[in-house]
Amino acid sequence: MKIQIYDTTLRDGEQGAGIHYTLEDKLHIIQALDELGVDYIEAGNFDSPNHTRGHQVSRDRELFERIPSLHLQHARLAVFGSTRRPGTEAAADEVLAYIAACAAGTVTIVGKSWLYQVENILKTSPEENLAMIGDTIRFLRSAGKEVIFDAEHFFDGYSDNPSYALSVVETAVGAGAAAVALCDTNGGMMPDVVGMVTSAVCRRFPGICTAIHCHNDIGMAAAATASAVLNGASQIQGSISGIGERCGNANLNTLIPLLQIKLGYQCIPEDRLKKLTACARYVNEIANRQFDENEPFVGGYAFTHKGGMHIDGVKKAPRSFEHIDPAWVGNERNFLISALSGRTAIRDKAALLRPGIDRDAPEVEALLDKVRDYESRGFQYENSEASLMLIILEAFGMRRSFYTLENYQITINESLSGGICTALVKISVDGSVEITAAEGNGPVSALDLALRKALSRFYPEIESLRLTDYKVRVLNSSEATASKVRVFVETSDGKRVWRTIGVSPDIVDASRQALADAIDYKLSGMAEAYPSV
Amino acid sequence: MKIQIYDTTLRDGEQGAGIHYTLEDKLHIIQALDELGVDYIEAGNFDSPNHTRGHQVSRDRELFERIPSLHLQHARLAVFGSTRRPGTEAAADEVLAYIAACAAGTVTIVGKSWLYQVENILKTSPEENLAMIGDTIRFLRSAGKEVIFDAEHFFDGYSDNPSYALSVVETAVGAGAAAVALCDTNGGMMPDVVGMVTSAVCRRFPGICTAIHCHNDIGMAAAATASAVLNGASQIQGSISGIGERCGNANLNTLIPLLQIKLGYQCIPEDRLKKLTACARYVNEIANRQFDENEPFVGGYAFTHKGGMHIDGVKKAPRSFEHIDPAWVGNERNFLISALSGRTAIRDKAALLRPGIDRDAPEVEALLDKVRDYESRGFQYENSEASLMLIILEAFGMRRSFYTLENYQITINESLSGGICTALVKISVDGSVEITAAEGNGPVSALDLALRKALSRFYPEIESLRLTDYKVRVLNSSEATASKVRVFVETSDGKRVWRTIGVSPDIVDASRQALADAIDYKLSGMAEAYPSV
Repeated sequence: MKIQIYDTTLRDGEQGAGIHYTLEDKLHIIQALDELGVDYIEAGNFDSPNHTRGHQVSRDRELFERIPSLHLQHARLAVFGSTRRPGTEAAADEVLAYIAACAAGTVTIVGKSWLYQVENILKTSPEENLAMIGDTIRFLRSAGKEVIFDAEHFFDGYSDNPSYALSVVETAVGAGAAAVALCDTNGGMMPDVVGMVTSAVCRRFPGICTAIHCHNDIGMAAAATASAVLNGASQIQGSISGIGERCGNANLNTLIPLLQIKLGYQCIPEDRLKKLTACARYVNEIANRQFDENEPFVGGYAFTHKGGMHIDGVKKAPRSFEHIDPAWVGNERNFLISALSGRTAIRDKAALLRPGIDRDAPEVEALLDKVRDYESRGFQYENSEASLMLIILEAFGMRRSFYTLENYQITINESLSGGICTALVKISVDGSVEITAAEGNGPVSALDLALRKALSRFYPEIESLRLTDYKVRVLNSSEATASKVRVFVETSDGKRVWRTIGVSPDIVDASRQALADAIDYKLSGMAEAYPSV
Repeated sequence: MKIQIYDTTLRDGEQGAGIHYTLEDKLHIIQALDELGVDYIEAGNFDSPNHTRGHQVSRDRELFERIPSLHLQHARLAVFGSTRRPGTEAAADEVLAYIAACAAGTVTIVGKSWLYQVENILKTSPEENLAMIGDTIRFLRSAGKEVIFDAEHFFDGYSDNPSYALSVVETAVGAGAAAVALCDTNGGMMPDVVGMVTSAVCRRFPGICTAIHCHNDIGMAAAATASAVLNGASQIQGSISGIGERCGNANLNTLIPLLQIKLGYQCIPEDRLKKLTACARYVNEIANRQFDENEPFVGGYAFTHKGGMHIDGVKKAPRSFEHIDPAWVGNERNFLISALSGRTAIRDKAALLRPGIDRDAPEVEALLDKVRDYESRGFQYENSEASLMLIILEAFGMRRSFYTLENYQITINESLSGGICTALVKISVDGSVEITAAEGNGPVSALDLALRKALSRFYPEIESLRLTDYKVRVLNSSEATASKVRVFVETSDGKRVWRTIGVSPDIVDASRQALADAIDYKLSGMAEAYPSV
């Protein structure tokens, strides 16, 4: 059975703290969601003539002007708006007039279904609220739009006064809504309640598409959405990674594989499921949001095994500690390198360099000691396996020194007339000395540029390197600026990507370590030999 | 009805990627959990004589030696271990002998309940597996321990072969286990299935305490745990913020208020519920883990309203967009300052400085423009309201300049013999010039020290300031080291705490902005006037 996926990452998602999209961000996300194969993308928000978000309204107007150039393969674009206001006419509402004329084929209209809200927030009569809903939908239908009605606070409203809540649905259906979304706006409903109420609505209005829209305020958004589907809902509304206000919306990264793999529904085309992990990371990146590596199905740790017992078990039989094959959602299995992971995982990495090495060999023991020592100083190789591979290389006596960094000096000069940051580095390669300097936006970029400039005379291949990501984490942050920082650097040579780490009380020094490892990894030929690390 | 809370933040939590506790970390967390009022704290792990985690085993041995000095008010401490191995005797097992003798009153023993695991991982017979469970529990009971049996993979085992899974429970109960924990080890079970199976076990063994232990691999750990409780489980196992392997464990921050407030169970003493938010933040901080501000109930954004419509609604009637009173769990309502929040929230802040100001006043309009301009450059005032208050002060013409930073120069010298970082600053106050310098662990701490040293001649009150937190976020990280960084600084004068922000391509300059705001906030008397910002 088909379940429609209605994505609101761009609309409800933008209500989330710290989420701000540019027009280009929105276009990138629309493209990614279309490739994933969702049915609807709620792309713009015209809920009220709210002058304080005028720049968002104008951004969304421009977005809809560019719709014809988007060439979407699968998804329909939806625009979000409200019913007309009390005591007015839909045809006279300038926002509704804009919506009726804009290029989106689908309009989602929010209206009240809880009498408490009608009386205390709208301050109008129950009858006028129904008229507002009916008029608005009829107006948009006559303009040729497909209309989805969002019944705000439906579950609170149903608990309070079921007959009024149902009359709201009846009004929307009677006016021509193609679907009615039952919204748990406050996110406080238990899955069983959501399931029972959804079932009641589906029985009462068997011909319509019932959608479910949940928030995660009690951590139940995904469970309640699944419960609604099991009770007859045929469209789910949610967002990538649950991005949204307060505790977020229902997480589509969780629900799509849950419904499709575990419960046998069809949400997106079967061949698109393996795009899910990449899509999730991409959208979080565009939203400039820290990706939650523990996220079900798509997180970097979702199939990552740390405990020694678990690693042994998964190697013997994947079903032991994995509920699905990670490849189905485009994710992969991983064994963490850490004190807990036992020698199996370390041995696997070591065996890449020395095939057939014994897991009890003294070199493996020495390697484990070394990794533990680094870890106790704040290093973590979970996301910087290139640095770990260099440690293994060193433990096996296979690491080469490519240059000596004799010294460097960084100067940051700031005055009222402006500032400048310069780095001077002196390196030597087999007795041959190179001294050079570079300017940068800050101390790290100046050092990076100067170091690569000095080295490129000896190793022209490093000219192809570029830093593709740079992350800073402050350790023991209660000691504030005197605490240690951990720097992760991601480097690419255009064909492969690898990740390195540095730890120091000084952010510049920590960055220098990570940059040096990134360069060594390339110069040792490791980037070519172990591209997937 | 009472539901026992069994916390495994220290044991299953340590299987989580990036989680490493010192002995002191564990002691701090035990204290915090005891104050929260949980029933059990699983404090140590002796699951196998695993040499690769020898330092953790010795840490946990030392921990249990210190138990008598802990003076816990409420919680019982539990230690985790495995059944004896196939073909051995429990009394001859050195790990079990240690467990039997250690100071923990409760022992949680994990054993297999899925025949697939017995045959493919343990590689022993169904009968020997039962004997291993029975022998181990009897051995520990005879040593005076309370025993909880963890039935690993119980739900997979029950689906596969219900009679064998039930015979495992029967064996554990017959041997004297006080409770049997049904574990969804792979985290792939739907809440309805967990509820039905739990109900079957509770009907079959009405006299025992049935516990539930879920993992979050399909995002259902909290929902499945709640479903088990609704079907008869009387103990829940989980961790603070769901810290744990892969996608984590059931989140106690969610489940305690859900069960206690929404479903009428009694989990922790009623007067402790309001400690939940502080406890959650504290444990995440000790675990050196980025706190998820979107977490249900306890997150900083859980009751934070951004959309203009939502803010107006909550002010008229809190029930509109809040499912509980945030104070019940020690959290608070907040209105985000951002482009989406509308003038209401900004006006509230402005009214702190100019009581009674009109929301349509030109100054408020100018202020909104200013905030929008800063936001477009990467500033965010959601976690740095002290910097926002300074902008409001400025917009109202009330901001004073306390000093001029004429110039500063930072020098980082690194050579093979070591490194040094110095900052030189020149400031002027009313024509009087001060030039001084300081050394630091890195450029930011050197600048911080030098700036405060120079200013303290004029403003001795800033000697009481100390930085209590320092966070760095890289914006647009695809541009790597040349991208912008956003620095958050938390400052305290020993009595109050305030937060400021800086944004720049140069991390030193961004830090300088945040430090300067922190100092200005104190010098303007704002820290005293608005201590809660």
